[in-house]
Amino acid sequence: MKNPENNPISTEIKEDGSFNRQTNRFITPFGNKEGDLPVEKGRYRLLWSAVCPWAHRSVIVRKVLGLEDVISLGTASPMRPKLPHVDWEFSLDDGNLDPILKIRYMSEIYLKTDPTYQGRPTVPVIVDIKEKKVVNNDYFKLTNYLENDWKPYHKDNAPELYPESLRQEISNLNDVIFNEVNNGVYKCGFAQSQEAYEEAYDVLFTRLDKLEEHLGERRFLFGDFITDSDVRLYATLIRFDVAYYSAFKTNRNRIVDFHHLWGYLRDLYQTPGFGDTTDFHAIKVHYHLSNHIGSNDHKGENILPKGPDLSGLLSDHGRQALSKHKSKFLII
Amino acid sequence: MKNPENNPISTEIKEDGSFNRQTNRFITPFGNKEGDLPVEKGRYRLLWSAVCPWAHRSVIVRKVLGLEDVISLGTASPMRPKLPHVDWEFSLDDGNLDPILKIRYMSEIYLKTDPTYQGRPTVPVIVDIKEKKVVNNDYFKLTNYLENDWKPYHKDNAPELYPESLRQEISNLNDVIFNEVNNGVYKCGFAQSQEAYEEAYDVLFTRLDKLEEHLGERRFLFGDFITDSDVRLYATLIRFDVAYYSAFKTNRNRIVDFHHLWGYLRDLYQTPGFGDTTDFHAIKVHYHLSNHIGSNDHKGENILPKGPDLSGLLSDHGRQALSKHKSKFLII
Repeated sequence: MKNPENNPISTEIKEDGSFNRQTNRFITPFGNKEGDLPVEKGRYRLLWSAVCPWAHRSVIVRKVLGLEDVISLGTASPMRPKLPHVDWEFSLDDGNLDPILKIRYMSEIYLKTDPTYQGRPTVPVIVDIKEKKVVNNDYFKLTNYLENDWKPYHKDNAPELYPESLRQEISNLNDVIFNEVNNGVYKCGFAQSQEAYEEAYDVLFTRLDKLEEHLGERRFLFGDFITDSDVRLYATLIRFDVAYYSAFKTNRNRIVDFHHLWGYLRDLYQTPGFGDTTDFHAIKVHYHLSNHIGSNDHKGENILPKGPDLSGLLSDHGRQALSKHKSKFLII
Repeated sequence: MKNPENNPISTEIKEDGSFNRQTNRFITPFGNKEGDLPVEKGRYRLLWSAVCPWAHRSVIVRKVLGLEDVISLGTASPMRPKLPHVDWEFSLDDGNLDPILKIRYMSEIYLKTDPTYQGRPTVPVIVDIKEKKVVNNDYFKLTNYLENDWKPYHKDNAPELYPESLRQEISNLNDVIFNEVNNGVYKCGFAQSQEAYEEAYDVLFTRLDKLEEHLGERRFLFGDFITDSDVRLYATLIRFDVAYYSAFKTNRNRIVDFHHLWGYLRDLYQTPGFGDTTDFHAIKVHYHLSNHIGSNDHKGENILPKGPDLSGLLSDHGRQALSKHKSKFLII
């Protein structure tokens, strides 16, 4: 373990040098049952930072389902503030304060909710605006809540990202994508031993090879229509070439080197809710100029890379040919 | 300027943050004129490290011209030793000593030659074995000496890498390749200001775009035959995707993304003297595990990247079609 005393994720590194992500603290579900978080328009604020793949997935789903006027959005800077602890800062806002919650640092709302909170203050997080308290930071389930429990507020003809008939299969695939891809890139980047890094690297690229094959025969992961699993895979793939390839040493290949994954990524990028919520500048600034937790590289450097060339993302992908349906979305 | 007191190349960084490489100290030419270094078989030892592109070019030319039994070769480790000053170490040899010169560190031979020597001890360097002194470290001209002044010792049917009729044109192109490509990648990686980095990056990729076009119509830089200029360009291109792209932030594109440059690089890599003197492990170890001078990234990290996938270097390049001659080499 390297510099455990200076490493903000030292409690998340196991003896063998592998990265073991902290669990979520605030996991009360949304719903109608007793103890559930009530589903109410205008009551909550979703806090994110555009660099974060875990938060990005919720922001994509919020937009695709038309929940923008139902749940407001607060955006923290991709630059980590210079503090003794890991935090996010609302330095993009006037006066360095989130205009609704009037907080400067993400940790403020976590500590106001639970003065004993010891974990990293993470995004995405749902804050109850009335109570000014964190109510949910369960990045793994948050999109499913938006897709399922927030259905009364979806826009007209909102797509089905989490259809009942596929729910079990989507959840199963989400687990694989989480362990091997979404968190897989972090396991590479945060590994503190060569063995842990190489194991994560092999698992990651073995899975990408399988997905490449899978997507050679299907437009999206479950066929003709975008589902919750596609949102999750997108959030990692879109950051891969611009950040993880160099910063996390996930450098067997870039996504642009995979024929089908690259076409699939372009297809999603060109879909409203995906590309228009993707902020490459924020991603680059974070991974190259900001002190971010635990990475093997790029700690507080002062040069922002000009590349890579991302213009290809707007090129024709031709993947409509794999789909029988004109719309990418299943609408029930 | 960042940490000038801890930066071994601080004297090579200008006020605007740009990198200004030190000049060579030992520049006496080889030849027959008074004061020249005598051309004698078995008298000299060429010291290099496989990571170094400036040294690699001399090692390629030595092999292509069949000078292996004429000038011996000593190889320093790609891992910089942990010393207060920048150095190279013969830690690949038994007892950590070069078997002929009996030195552990490159600086020893420089200081033995000139006790007042203040610069970085660089490779390539030619050492007079009899005198045990540095006689030439002029990386820019060294291949030309081997090509021209060492002709009496070339193997039978040795190729012409520096033919008289093209000498001026080759030298002119070498200057461009030096300023914009060979040293251009270092200007990107060693820049201490965003402006200096971006300027070097633009110059580098503008030149690569021009070379891409040039090599679309010619098998090698001067047509059908490999010349000294190809050796110089090769030494940078072969390190590009595996090192500079990430470590020096030269990341608009990789060489594999350029159709003609990539074919040209494969063609050279598959030529005796080129690929067989290229040590990717040494290059990766240096750029990712060793403290090397001045880079913006990767300072003494402990994880060696597994990628990138370099298997494509052995694939068919089809560039014979651009050449009227069967041999890649001009033999007079």
